[in-house]
Amino acid sequence: MDLSKIGEFGLISFIKEQFSSLNHPLIEGIGDDCAVINTHDEHNMVLTTDLLVEGKHFILDNISPYELGYKTLAVNLSDVASMGATPYASLLGVALGEGVSTEWAKEFIRGYHTLSEKYGVALIGGDTTAAASGASTLSVTALGRVNSSNIKRRSAAELGDLVVLNRPVGDSSLALRLMLEKKECPLSLRAAHNMPEPMIAEGVFLGSREEVGAMMDVSDGIASDLRHICKLSGCGAKIFVSDIPQSQVLKSKCEELAWPTMPFTLSGGEDYALLFTLKPEAYPSLARHYLKEVGGTLSVIGEIVEGEEIVFLDSANNQLDVQLGFRHF
Amino acid sequence: MDLSKIGEFGLISFIKEQFSSLNHPLIEGIGDDCAVINTHDEHNMVLTTDLLVEGKHFILDNISPYELGYKTLAVNLSDVASMGATPYASLLGVALGEGVSTEWAKEFIRGYHTLSEKYGVALIGGDTTAAASGASTLSVTALGRVNSSNIKRRSAAELGDLVVLNRPVGDSSLALRLMLEKKECPLSLRAAHNMPEPMIAEGVFLGSREEVGAMMDVSDGIASDLRHICKLSGCGAKIFVSDIPQSQVLKSKCEELAWPTMPFTLSGGEDYALLFTLKPEAYPSLARHYLKEVGGTLSVIGEIVEGEEIVFLDSANNQLDVQLGFRHF
Repeated sequence: MDLSKIGEFGLISFIKEQFSSLNHPLIEGIGDDCAVINTHDEHNMVLTTDLLVEGKHFILDNISPYELGYKTLAVNLSDVASMGATPYASLLGVALGEGVSTEWAKEFIRGYHTLSEKYGVALIGGDTTAAASGASTLSVTALGRVNSSNIKRRSAAELGDLVVLNRPVGDSSLALRLMLEKKECPLSLRAAHNMPEPMIAEGVFLGSREEVGAMMDVSDGIASDLRHICKLSGCGAKIFVSDIPQSQVLKSKCEELAWPTMPFTLSGGEDYALLFTLKPEAYPSLARHYLKEVGGTLSVIGEIVEGEEIVFLDSANNQLDVQLGFRHF
Repeated sequence: MDLSKIGEFGLISFIKEQFSSLNHPLIEGIGDDCAVINTHDEHNMVLTTDLLVEGKHFILDNISPYELGYKTLAVNLSDVASMGATPYASLLGVALGEGVSTEWAKEFIRGYHTLSEKYGVALIGGDTTAAASGASTLSVTALGRVNSSNIKRRSAAELGDLVVLNRPVGDSSLALRLMLEKKECPLSLRAAHNMPEPMIAEGVFLGSREEVGAMMDVSDGIASDLRHICKLSGCGAKIFVSDIPQSQVLKSKCEELAWPTMPFTLSGGEDYALLFTLKPEAYPSLARHYLKEVGGTLSVIGEIVEGEEIVFLDSANNQLDVQLGFRHF
C-alpha cells in the first residue's frame, strides 16, 4: 500500500476523524489556514504550522540560504494574514542536512530574521538537530492575533459573492520552472518564488471588512485552493480565466518561450496572494479603500454559484479543462 | 566549515542574539523548556516545538509506528509538564519517507491519538508532506496553560536547594543500546524508550508548590540538563551518583551484561523524568503530599552549591568523571 493512493487529503481526513472527539469548544481546529484559540473575550490566537522539505519544496541550487530563511517564515505568515490576523511570534525547527555549513545556517537565520523584523514577529522557541540524510527539513509554527469579528474563514462564501484576488499570480511557479530548466529567470520572478511577501497589511485590512466573506491564501494554485472554499461553504464557482491578473514579466516571458500562462496562473501554486469572496455591491467602495489604505488593485476573477463544481471559462465563455494544484504525495 | 564546530548550542546562541531586539514584554522566548505567552491577567499559554528525525532520533526497526506516534507527542507534552502547565492542544507536521505505507501512517496517528486522548489534548492543525529521501521527519508543537504563579523555570534554583528526581532514569537509553546491539530488551525497558510517559499530573502538582524552585524534564541526561539549570540560575551543584534512582530491571540487566549503569543514568537521555530543586526544609511534607496526590517517590540526588561547576560524587565522596549528554550535531 502506498500513501499516494489515499493522498494528502485522505490522510488529513483520517486524522480529523480520529481526533473529532477531542474537539474543544474554544478551539477551531483542522480545516482552515490556521487554528483559532479563543484566549479571552474577543481576543483570539491563530496558529499554523508548515514543513519545508529539501528536494520537495526547495532545492539548494535555486535558493540562497538567506532567501530560504525569509521564505520559510513567509509561507507561515501568509497563513496568518489570510485569517485576517496580525502575526507576532514564531517557533522554528531545523533539521539540517550534512552539506550545511555554519555560514549557511547563519545566512538562513539572517533571512528569517529580516522578515521577522519587518513585521515585529518574535522568535519564541524552536529545535535544532541534524537531519538523517543530506536533506534538510524546516518546520515553522506561526502565531497571530485577531479579534473575533475580524476572523476570516474558508467556509464563509455565499451565493452571488464575487471571487477576488489581491495581486497577480503565476510568477512563482513560472520562476520555479525556469530555474529547474536552467533557463534565464528575471529577478522579479525569482523573488516571487524565493522571497514571497506575505500579505500582512492586506489581510488585516480585509479582515476588518464585513463585506469580505471567505478568505485564504493561494498556496497550491487557485484551481486547487478555491475548491477548499467551495467545499467548506457548500457552493460552486465560475472563474473567468482571462480576468486572472498576471504580471507583465510573466506575460512577456511566456510569450518569449511560447508557453501558455494558465498552468502557472491557475495550477502553479506558491503565489501567497489573498483569494477572497465579496458582496458584489461592496466592490467599488472596498477597492477604493483598499487602494488608499494598503495600496494595490483588487481583481474580480469570478463569482460564487450554486452546486459544487468550479467552472473555468475563457473569454468566449467556453469551458476549460484545468489541472489541479500541487500534490504533496 | 562544519556545524559540529559551533554545535547545537552555538547555533542557538547565534539565533538568540539575532532576535534579541524583537523580544516582547508579554512573551518569554528561547531558553526554557517552553515559551510563555501571557494571554490575559494570570493566564498563560506555554508552547514548545520538537523535531524527531528518522535515523537520528528513531529507527524503524526498533519502534512500531503506534509507539512512534505516542512518543512523538509524549516528548512535547513532557516539556509542557516541566513548566508546571497542563497540555491541551498540539499541531503535528509529518514529512513521510518513501518506505511509509498508508497503514504505517494510520498506526502512527493512532498512537498519537492514544496519548492525546489520555490527557484531552486536541489536535488543532498540522502539515503532511512527503520527505525528500527515505527518512521521515516529525514535528510537533504542543500548547499548555498555566497560571503565572505556577510557572516553573530553569532559572529559579537557589543556593542550598535540594536537587530532586521524580522517578528512576536510565531505562530509556539502556533500551536503546540493547536494541541497537540486537540484545534481548525487556518490555518495560522498551516501553521506557518507545512510549515514555509524560509527567503531566506530576508537573502540575509540582508547579503548584511554592517550595519547588527550578524545574525541567530530563531529555539529554541529568549531567547535561542540570547544566542548563545551573547556568541560568548562576550556581553549581553537587550530585551524589549513588542516590540517583534506578529501576530494578536496569540494575539486573546491567549486572547480567557487566555494564556500568552510570552512562545510562547520568548521560543517557530521553528519560522524561522531572528534575527540580526544592527548599530542604520542605522536603518531608512535599514528598508526603506527592505520594498521596500523584503517587510515587521523590529522590534527593544532590544540592545546589556556589560556583558554576557540577561535581559528581560516588558513595565514598570521590569525584567522578562524567560524560555529557546527547550531541545533536
